[in-house]
Amino acid sequence: MLHPQLLIPLLDYASVLVFALTGALVASRAQLDLVGFIFFATLTGIGGGTLRDLVLNRSAVFWVARPELLLLISAAAVLVFFTAHLLESRYRLLLWLDALALAVAVPAGVGVALQAHVSPVVVVAMGVITGTFGGLMRDVVGNELPLVLKQGELYITAAFGGSVTVVSLIEIDCPRPLALIMGAGVVFLLRAGSMALGWRLPVYKARPPRN
Amino acid sequence: MLHPQLLIPLLDYASVLVFALTGALVASRAQLDLVGFIFFATLTGIGGGTLRDLVLNRSAVFWVARPELLLLISAAAVLVFFTAHLLESRYRLLLWLDALALAVAVPAGVGVALQAHVSPVVVVAMGVITGTFGGLMRDVVGNELPLVLKQGELYITAAFGGSVTVVSLIEIDCPRPLALIMGAGVVFLLRAGSMALGWRLPVYKARPPRN
Amino acid sequence: MLHPQLLIPLLDYASVLVFALTGALVASRAQLDLVGFIFFATLTGIGGGTLRDLVLNRSAVFWVARPELLLLISAAAVLVFFTAHLLESRYRLLLWLDALALAVAVPAGVGVALQAHVSPVVVVAMGVITGTFGGLMRDVVGNELPLVLKQGELYITAAFGGSVTVVSLIEIDCPRPLALIMGAGVVFLLRAGSMALGWRLPVYKARPPRN
Repeated sequence: MLHPQLLIPLLDYASVLVFALTGALVASRAQLDLVGFIFFATLTGIGGGTLRDLVLNRSAVFWVARPELLLLISAAAVLVFFTAHLLESRYRLLLWLDALALAVAVPAGVGVALQAHVSPVVVVAMGVITGTFGGLMRDVVGNELPLVLKQGELYITAAFGGSVTVVSLIEIDCPRPLALIMGAGVVFLLRAGSMALGWRLPVYKARPPRN
Repeated sequence: MLHPQLLIPLLDYASVLVFALTGALVASRAQLDLVGFIFFATLTGIGGGTLRDLVLNRSAVFWVARPELLLLISAAAVLVFFTAHLLESRYRLLLWLDALALAVAVPAGVGVALQAHVSPVVVVAMGVITGTFGGLMRDVVGNELPLVLKQGELYITAAFGGSVTVVSLIEIDCPRPLALIMGAGVVFLLRAGSMALGWRLPVYKARPPRN
Repeated sequence: MLHPQLLIPLLDYASVLVFALTGALVASRAQLDLVGFIFFATLTGIGGGTLRDLVLNRSAVFWVARPELLLLISAAAVLVFFTAHLLESRYRLLLWLDALALAVAVPAGVGVALQAHVSPVVVVAMGVITGTFGGLMRDVVGNELPLVLKQGELYITAAFGGSVTVVSLIEIDCPRPLALIMGAGVVFLLRAGSMALGWRLPVYKARPPRN
């Protein structure tokens, strides 16, 4: 079976790449030039992991240690720049790619945090931070409604559910690679179920809206 | 008298808790689900102190070292989720809780910065950063008008006034716990005076608005 | 010729000062009080360099090591508070000062990153981050349209071009001070050409806008 020392960097690479694609799609919605595409792809691809690494006080932020990631991101941005006009619905694709990136980034964040020997509660938080902050920065800087604010959709909840899944499975001595893959599955399932089938949790309802 | 080694964590806990309540109230205004409440409570509760700890290069960010804070924040978010509909005016409460959290967070930030042996100017800045950045992140992510932009209200000014008060009192050898408490009083007094009595500083007035 | 050990702090000081002026101009557009001016001047002046220093894991963030920068920023904010009403067009001035600050901050960021012995790709990214993030935070917090989103203007592209210029020149053994100054020139030329003469790169055009 895949060794966690290999699986975690693999998840990191995959989430960076897919988040980069979503950043480039936001750049296409803002009608930027090629360098603007690279900027948003980079911000989205590395945002969550950078915050995680700073908070965990790791000796080097992951993309400083592996600079080829920046080239991979740039290639993804160039690809989107030249092909996005072929797409029927860029926003729909953005949402599904974002779901995929979230599903991969959450266990990647958990995996890195586990290596830092912090409390399980902190590990859960790191999974959520790694999964959500890249997309959050993309939306705040790109003037989009942050996905975390979409009423009634499972987003943070999906990230949280997946993060708790990985940490719980490892607590009961499930092999680490299996736990990471199960966590990714839970995130994607919750997010996809929310988008395609309308799954949701009860939301807070005030009497008068926004007083 | 209360020892600073006890008082500073106490102020930290209190500010995290009260800021968490304001974050949950913003989540209620955005009609999120329970996990959304926890997310905004966490972002607001730990945002300012996290930035402070990163900039001061502390060996561990405060909530990584004390993970029970994340559970306290979650409990606060759950409480708000189930009781906020009982409130007459959530926005009014949000403003007053934010004032209280600001009043506690500023001296907490100053206290931590003093332990890091940096220049008094940097200590003042750390008080302001700790006090304001959690609320700022809450407002930016939650699509609210940042309180720092409210024309004519004392907000940054209240934080700055309290931070300068603590640092000045300690420079003239005032006992540290007294200085911290006086600083909290100054922040709350300025902010409350501004909200309830209309206290303000002269604001910049351009000839044509926004050219 | 100017020694890089002197030139890099000089560029840092200049970029902090000029970015501080732009932050104060945004505060004037939001009609804040004097402390609000200092807040925005500080956020803009130190934002990019702070992020760079955190990501590079430097032993101290630059303004913690040189606190007199905060006093310099405050003086700049006070100056703008009392004189901005004399200006014909504050937004025009803001754009040109921002261009100047960008031109100085990019090589400053590159210079600092070179001292950290990281990959050239990372050095290029640090130049862009140092140049753009202060202004980005200013615009996000100040509720302005981020300059990075201005369609068809060279902004990120100017920063990127200048950053690549410095790194490339140093790779071919150009003396470091000359490379830094050439990089500043490239940034300013690209940005000024874009603002004054309409230079631009082709932008992405979708068939239907924002589907």
